[in-house]
Amino acid sequence: MSEKEHPRDDLLTTEELAHGMDVDTLVVDEVRLAVAMHNAGAVEKTLDELDPADAADVVEQLSAGETQAAARLAPGAFGGDVLAELSDDALEDVVESLNPRQLADAINEMEMDDAVQLVEELEENFRTGVLKQLAPKLRNLLESSLKFEEDSAGRLMQREFVTAPQFWTVGQLIDHVRQSSNENLPDVFYEVYVVDPAFHPVGTVALSTLIRAERNTPLTEVMTSLRAIVTPQMDQEDAAYLFEKYDLPSAPVVDNEGRLTGMIMVDDIVEVLHEEHKEDMLALAGVHEAGLADTVLETVRSRAPWLVINLITAILASAVIASFSAVIAKIVALAVLAPIVASMGGNAGTQGLAVTVRAIASRDITSANVRRIILREIMAGLINGLIFAVIMGPIAWLWFDSVLIALVIGAAMLINLLIAGLAGILVPLGLKRFGADPAVASSVFVTTATDVVGFFVFLGLATLILL
Amino acid sequence: MSEKEHPRDDLLTTEELAHGMDVDTLVVDEVRLAVAMHNAGAVEKTLDELDPADAADVVEQLSAGETQAAARLAPGAFGGDVLAELSDDALEDVVESLNPRQLADAINEMEMDDAVQLVEELEENFRTGVLKQLAPKLRNLLESSLKFEEDSAGRLMQREFVTAPQFWTVGQLIDHVRQSSNENLPDVFYEVYVVDPAFHPVGTVALSTLIRAERNTPLTEVMTSLRAIVTPQMDQEDAAYLFEKYDLPSAPVVDNEGRLTGMIMVDDIVEVLHEEHKEDMLALAGVHEAGLADTVLETVRSRAPWLVINLITAILASAVIASFSAVIAKIVALAVLAPIVASMGGNAGTQGLAVTVRAIASRDITSANVRRIILREIMAGLINGLIFAVIMGPIAWLWFDSVLIALVIGAAMLINLLIAGLAGILVPLGLKRFGADPAVASSVFVTTATDVVGFFVFLGLATLILL
Repeated sequence: MSEKEHPRDDLLTTEELAHGMDVDTLVVDEVRLAVAMHNAGAVEKTLDELDPADAADVVEQLSAGETQAAARLAPGAFGGDVLAELSDDALEDVVESLNPRQLADAINEMEMDDAVQLVEELEENFRTGVLKQLAPKLRNLLESSLKFEEDSAGRLMQREFVTAPQFWTVGQLIDHVRQSSNENLPDVFYEVYVVDPAFHPVGTVALSTLIRAERNTPLTEVMTSLRAIVTPQMDQEDAAYLFEKYDLPSAPVVDNEGRLTGMIMVDDIVEVLHEEHKEDMLALAGVHEAGLADTVLETVRSRAPWLVINLITAILASAVIASFSAVIAKIVALAVLAPIVASMGGNAGTQGLAVTVRAIASRDITSANVRRIILREIMAGLINGLIFAVIMGPIAWLWFDSVLIALVIGAAMLINLLIAGLAGILVPLGLKRFGADPAVASSVFVTTATDVVGFFVFLGLATLILL
Repeated sequence: MSEKEHPRDDLLTTEELAHGMDVDTLVVDEVRLAVAMHNAGAVEKTLDELDPADAADVVEQLSAGETQAAARLAPGAFGGDVLAELSDDALEDVVESLNPRQLADAINEMEMDDAVQLVEELEENFRTGVLKQLAPKLRNLLESSLKFEEDSAGRLMQREFVTAPQFWTVGQLIDHVRQSSNENLPDVFYEVYVVDPAFHPVGTVALSTLIRAERNTPLTEVMTSLRAIVTPQMDQEDAAYLFEKYDLPSAPVVDNEGRLTGMIMVDDIVEVLHEEHKEDMLALAGVHEAGLADTVLETVRSRAPWLVINLITAILASAVIASFSAVIAKIVALAVLAPIVASMGGNAGTQGLAVTVRAIASRDITSANVRRIILREIMAGLINGLIFAVIMGPIAWLWFDSVLIALVIGAAMLINLLIAGLAGILVPLGLKRFGADPAVASSVFVTTATDVVGFFVFLGLATLILL
């Protein structure tokens, strides 16, 4: 639809409504073919005809090699508007294939926040080369943004925003906006920040309020107090939390002296939420930084470290089994049943873990409710333990015709599910307290605990009772 | 800060900057105490003094029982502004304790989309009672929104939005907005939709563009084409995807004839992203609809079903072990090593699964790249298999002093990690094709496959080679 800048009176077709939902595979194939045939004109033409967000989607479907070839072939198709929409993976492949001059051109077309996201992905030396090609003013702004830590609010903010002194009227503000050159205004903004003489933000006026107000109304009458203020040092997740909590369309960023220095927009926050969620979910499953364009070797590299850790803990658990070899040699049923106890513990622990990690990320666990939640998890573990002891006992009895084995597995199940409940809540909370990311490290501790305890309690009780 | 509606020139303190980041536990304790002492006035006063979003956060810290007691005691503290900010769990507890009259009062203060989110949580009979208390116009609007399916875009949309015919000028539009009564305008809006005579949206004008334009400019000159249009039947996840892709602040919703019928705002989409993330993450871990305010029994109920399924699959895997009892009785080392093969497969499968579920949710897997990704996962599985075969073989050799056992576990590891790679990608894609939610059901299939194959291949090869 992007090429239609003029009104139309035809009805929308279902196809048009579905526009944007799925990438057009025909277009992807077209680009792929053009790249294979080294047809630069065709690559450029096909991508240029699309909405930049759609063009970015098409590029994301290509393999890393195809993306690099496309960028080398048709650098003109990778303008600032497309680069701003690319995923980090695809962006990396594209920038590798452009020269500093081409990248600088793209950066000149971008908003500050998007430009920062691009420049931060560049290798040190290459970055210096690109920055040299930029106008001194833009270079300085970019360099000062890059001084903020990665994943901080400072990296997300744009330097263009609209302010008004608190003694202005609605009319004065509107005239000011009209007379400002477009260069000094953000492309899009949803609110104006009212500042005091020291440039501290004291309130905000939504454009939808501004447009309705009489020209002679003082701004102080139509402004509302700020519901949230962000600092550049704040973690981007914390900034996202404020947007979510207070339903903000944008937020002011202030420096150490409390002076307005930038603005963060909600569309960048939507991006952050998406990234952080992906990270949490993959971290829980033990995957480190995965992208769809990854090669086979990158995929192996992102997963093998976790499998090494898992191998160590699995060997640890097996060592527990090995220490009970004598009793297993006499009663093989124990080797059959032991994995059930460990598996149930692992699953129950993972459930509690996922709930806790999610609650920590949403800031739902606080000192006001943490004791109640720990108690709840322990009680739930105990009740689950009772339920599955009562279910598994009779099954073991019927299977191996032994009341004693039934008692042993029942008791082991009860204990291991209680341990699972404890570990599922205490491990992530403990890691958080020590400053570690609970999503990344919890799972190995929890499953090691439930495996080791599961095997030890079951085989230990069996040794005591059956021998 | 909500009570300060007037400018100030003091510096911001760190405390003020941290405002909103953490719930004030002193306030939570205050409310808790007031509830325990049946002090209605204190409950109401404490909550009223907070920003509604903060008041909601405080309520979310209470247990279900405390929340119900607080709502019964001080219904006035649970106005529309607070109810709109509450999580579904807490909302459920509050509405149970209010009568239809009180709820209707709260609904009258709310925006349509928030009102729908509240009413949809009510029990059938109670809902009818509440709707009866509302003005016919509002009731009709609510009832027509509720006709759309749960989790559809129709439930998210508000009915207030601003439109302009395509032949208007900027000045005419601004005058129209100024003269409209506040009742007919949304509280906040970021753009105006330009419509044709049949009320089909043909473009959008951002307020930040409108405010800068000359009064006599035709709207068609400043409007941009619509990047996305939503239908009420669309799944809310699909709507969220469009917002994310096109960086939208709001989106028009059209009916079956393509006529503008509603508007969705980005803050509702942020909420949707949050909910969907939570659901995906918990579903992967086998937790069904968990809330922090849940009681112990609700917690058990949300987790036991998954544990029952896991018990069945664990017994299935144990049956495989049992069928090899004869060889285990002769070589106990097999009982020690078998769980390692199964555990490694389960973990590798879960990694692939998490990556795939995430990619499906982000619509990153399409027919244009699915073959490449499947191939990549299989190759990665094979390489991981080789790596861990080479690591585990020598360990087993040293541990049990048997080259044959080393060969058996190496081969089993290779095969099981290949199966894990296959299952991790094919199970979620297959479930998706059959219309099931890959986040919910995949994990049981994947781990059952890796457990059963792991035990079978390892013990089977052992029987063939060692006996």
